[in-house]
Parts: sequence; C-alpha cells; structure tokens
Amino acid sequence: MSIDREKFPPLYRTVAINQDGLNSHSYVPGGLDVVTSSPMTAAPGVNPEQFLGLALSTCLNATLEAIEKLRHLPHTSQVQTIVEYARDTRGFQFYVTAQIRIPGVDRPTAEAMADLAERRCPVAKLLGGSPNVTVELVDQFSEVAPVTVKSK
Amino acid sequence: MSIDREKFPPLYRTVAINQDGLNSHSYVPGGLDVVTSSPMTAAPGVNPEQFLGLALSTCLNATLEAIEKLRHLPHTSQVQTIVEYARDTRGFQFYVTAQIRIPGVDRPTAEAMADLAERRCPVAKLLGGSPNVTVELVDQFSEVAPVTVKSK
Repeated sequence: MSIDREKFPPLYRTVAINQDGLNSHSYVPGGLDVVTSSPMTAAPGVNPEQFLGLALSTCLNATLEAIEKLRHLPHTSQVQTIVEYARDTRGFQFYVTAQIRIPGVDRPTAEAMADLAERRCPVAKLLGGSPNVTVELVDQFSEVAPVTVKSK
Repeated sequence: MSIDREKFPPLYRTVAINQDGLNSHSYVPGGLDVVTSSPMTAAPGVNPEQFLGLALSTCLNATLEAIEKLRHLPHTSQVQTIVEYARDTRGFQFYVTAQIRIPGVDRPTAEAMADLAERRCPVAKLLGGSPNVTVELVDQFSEVAPVTVKSK
C-alpha cells in the first residue's frame, strides 16, 4: 500500500554523503563531518555499524521521551543498541539489538511504553522488516564485550 | 529462515547509546560522541535522519569500493542519501533515497555494480523490506533543497 506523499509533504529533509569510500569521511553538508574507517582495521573513525546504532538509539529514545511526556512522567528512559557484523551463507550481515531501559516506571508500564516506541519510532519502522533486528526491554543493559578481528 | 549465528560468530561488535533524549548527545563508548537535536528545532546537533543517512551512504560506498577493487577499477563511486521526515496516516515516517554515481564506468557496468552493491551492503539489506527506501543509480546527484519547519 503506497503512501500518499503529496498529501503528506516532508516536514524535514537532509542529506548525507560519502565520496571516497570506507577509509575517508562522511558528512552532512553544513553539518556533521567525521572520519570513517573499516571496523576490520585499527584505524580511528566511525563505521556504518556505529552510525546505524546511533540512529536507532537516538530515534527510539526520542520516541520514548515523547511517550513519557504524554504520560506526564519524568524522563528516565535509555537506549543502548548493539550492532554486530558477521558473515553468513548469503554474504555479510549486520545484527542489531536495541535494549530499552525505563527505570522510573513499573514493568508492565515499561513494557507498554517500549512496545509503543518500537511501533512509532521511524528508524525502528524502517528496520522492522528484517529478522536481524530485535528491540527488547531490559532492567539493566547487557555488558557489551567488543569483538574486533583486526586485519592490520 | 533463521541464520545460524553459532556457525557465523561476529567479526565485529559495537554499541551506541542515547540516555537523555533527542536534545542531548549520543555516543559510542570510547568513540564518537556528538550533540543531538530535534530536526524540528533550530538547535545545532545531529538527528536520527542524519545518522541513518550517514550509515547508508558509508555502507553502500564501502561496498561499491570493494566491487571496484574486484573489477580492478579505480575508485570513482559516490553515494548521497536523502532522508525525509513526514507525517502519514500511520504516524511519522522516514523516506530514504540513496543515489549512487559511478562516473568512471559506462552505464550498463554502473547499473550492474549498483545493483550488486544494493544486494550486498548490510545496511541496504536491513532496510530492504521497507517500501520507504529507494536505491537508484544517477548520472548527477539531485540538488537537495533543505526542508525545515522549525517549531522554534
């Protein structure tokens, strides 16, 4: 079912560019411009895994913040997104696990809020068709052990 | 069809965190830490739309760079990703258009390379289930007129 884009014109538009590949830089004209690097080398820089994790953590927590406001609750939510890169039979894949904590409310309330945030957050909606993506409510964030297999 | 993650352990793992909501900061522990802000205000900062665009542009161009290398071609590919935010009948949505340019090769070659990159890039795979996402080959990038409806 296609969406009527004439009826709903964009409220905001931005652009992000990469010209020189993975070991270069990526930028928003007039905005963020950061050095990029392969996760498989020791070179400093941001990689696509991190950009994606930042997109989902920021979007989900912004959505949770809006839900807290609607419920007249103080802001306590936090989001941590773990992104893994692995080979599989069909090539390379990312695996994404977003963990939501809402320490200020009881468990049933937190569950309802996390469920609503997953359905409302535009980044979570875009990723929702992938079996590689999980959004979960947690009491404590998992300790994340970095994994790196540096080629040099 | 689930993927055998035991058989394919992660080659890389990272984490991205947002604690204080949209007008705060998002960070990778030990890595990028940037101020974030709502696209609907004039406050400086990076927003989820930009993080997502940076993820897709960087990933697609890294994949194109690898394809160029396999074909013993010089690197000429560039990727620009436009992200729009709009309301629709089901809430708010992002619309994502990635434009690929490969000025160093003829059109049929560029088409084959862009098609392969879309199928191989892990971020494009994650987003591939969404009707809001388009990857297209272009001769020149579209001029992107910013749209902002600032609430204050």
